[in-house]
Amino acid sequence: MAETPALNLFLETVRGHGGRRAPIWIMRQAGRYLPEYRKIKECASFLEMTHDPALAAEITLQPLRRFPLDAAIIFSDIMTPLEALGVEIAFTPGPSIAEPLRSRAAIEALALRDEVAPFVGAALRIVRAALTQDIALIGFAGAPLTLAAYLVEGGGSKEYEHFRRFLRSEPAAMHVLLEKLTDLSIRYLRMQIASGAQAIQLFDSWAGLHDLQTYREFGLPYNARILAALADTGAARIYFALGAAHLIDAIAEIPAEAVGVDWRTDLAAARARLPGKALQGNLDPALLFADRSTITAEAHSILDQGRGGSHVFNLGHGIWPTTPIDAVAHLVETVQAYARP
Amino acid sequence: MAETPALNLFLETVRGHGGRRAPIWIMRQAGRYLPEYRKIKECASFLEMTHDPALAAEITLQPLRRFPLDAAIIFSDIMTPLEALGVEIAFTPGPSIAEPLRSRAAIEALALRDEVAPFVGAALRIVRAALTQDIALIGFAGAPLTLAAYLVEGGGSKEYEHFRRFLRSEPAAMHVLLEKLTDLSIRYLRMQIASGAQAIQLFDSWAGLHDLQTYREFGLPYNARILAALADTGAARIYFALGAAHLIDAIAEIPAEAVGVDWRTDLAAARARLPGKALQGNLDPALLFADRSTITAEAHSILDQGRGGSHVFNLGHGIWPTTPIDAVAHLVETVQAYARP
Repeated sequence: MAETPALNLFLETVRGHGGRRAPIWIMRQAGRYLPEYRKIKECASFLEMTHDPALAAEITLQPLRRFPLDAAIIFSDIMTPLEALGVEIAFTPGPSIAEPLRSRAAIEALALRDEVAPFVGAALRIVRAALTQDIALIGFAGAPLTLAAYLVEGGGSKEYEHFRRFLRSEPAAMHVLLEKLTDLSIRYLRMQIASGAQAIQLFDSWAGLHDLQTYREFGLPYNARILAALADTGAARIYFALGAAHLIDAIAEIPAEAVGVDWRTDLAAARARLPGKALQGNLDPALLFADRSTITAEAHSILDQGRGGSHVFNLGHGIWPTTPIDAVAHLVETVQAYARP
Repeated sequence: MAETPALNLFLETVRGHGGRRAPIWIMRQAGRYLPEYRKIKECASFLEMTHDPALAAEITLQPLRRFPLDAAIIFSDIMTPLEALGVEIAFTPGPSIAEPLRSRAAIEALALRDEVAPFVGAALRIVRAALTQDIALIGFAGAPLTLAAYLVEGGGSKEYEHFRRFLRSEPAAMHVLLEKLTDLSIRYLRMQIASGAQAIQLFDSWAGLHDLQTYREFGLPYNARILAALADTGAARIYFALGAAHLIDAIAEIPAEAVGVDWRTDLAAARARLPGKALQGNLDPALLFADRSTITAEAHSILDQGRGGSHVFNLGHGIWPTTPIDAVAHLVETVQAYARP
């Protein structure tokens, strides 16, 4: 109990030098379940909130004022940097692309600007200056195959039929698109790290659409190239894919210090398949609607499973807008009171 | 080559006595990719098509006239039998429930009628009389946890937040609902078998939303009860869950002769985890948009993986409405020309 706390528990844990407890942050912790966020949202559109550095920084800091979280994650969206490729995106409220990319010509025409979302860098600098050194600051980007899903489909979808059809009928054009998205993401993430992000998370929300062979051809090489290109920065790298239990052996090859695990995969089972990685996760967001004793029991069960290696506690997917705030407070308290052996 | 063909290759294969080739049918084979279906749809609503036995039978038979498929599956919808619980469903075009079930009282009020969708039985009798004995006739139902997802959510959804929240906050009421859906499904499937269905498939489209522990509590016992209750009928039983690679060890316990595998799980890997089961699947529906040589290669790869046990060829999910018909013809021909060792 007299052990000196790590300077930054989150970063130390992701790097494999964890302390006496698991650090905790929550995917989408800055967002709609907070009344102070909803208040800002009354007077600003989503695009305004992500583009105004002062607003984005304020929203990023909101959950840290309420809960003693171990990390902040910049308020933004995985679609935000796509503007630097000349893509027009609206939020209605999900992302909507005015002209979905469905031809090789449209893909060839995409040209990467020098500056990628500089306003995100400005927001990161404001947040970093406001945080004490024991709180980590996380930047993020979308994985190329996930960004491509939105760009070809034109928005969110259950089946992503346009996208999956295009991938099968025009595989060479798909690779051109993925190359461009990879170049964009490297530039974007390096800028975030230079602006104060000490860790970055690559969100591959739609990786789980694909079988292993398809992921190995169209997903893994680009994810690996992005994360390898950040190795010299010293930033901690986290990869998170959703519904990707069937891809776990490929994910093990990604050059990342930590892997986020969704709520459906047992952490102990993931540990065996992801040697050398810190694990992040994985409480079902729906469990925050259970009674308090169930939340406690499930959090303890996940913390127990998280032993035997480094573990960052998180939900297994983004927190839902209807989540009761006192359930979040109870979760954070429960996780931080649990002593690892 | 002189071997006598099985009387009904599909049924023999599901029962573990396969022949010289893998039988083939296609999920949603009666549907929107066929111009003759779209022509009927111009003059009849989806509800009319499923409720009129002559129309439903005609639509069921349409793909059999085009392709030498080894089985027919009755044209209907997993929501169809819910009328017998007094639930009003519209199709817009996805299912939409006027009054989603979000209280224990609403669930308690559901009363099961004696007759469950008798028009489906009438359609099955018409189809059975029209088919030769070498073509199997498949009936189906939705799994209780999947039906509950629609009933509580009120329709399709990406996250099923209402449903998953209700499951966590009212687990006892959820079990009451699942019990009622189980009773309904047993009655409905026994009626289908009595009306000529020689095999039945239980569709668990949303099983993959849940972690293993949740599936073991809310999914598996009800699926097992339904399928066990059909054991005395002699019908071949197939269980199909989507995105359920992480549930496969629980699925192995289900009393079914065959398990449908979605396009993301390698058949050879599934074989090792599903001892004693026939496997059904699993070409990615998107692959029907690839060039012909890719379709051939992928079909052969799946047929190769399917060796070492019984294998029914199918897609890994329902066929898409935009699928080119000549790709389907090519697939059926390729599969039927492949000789198993």
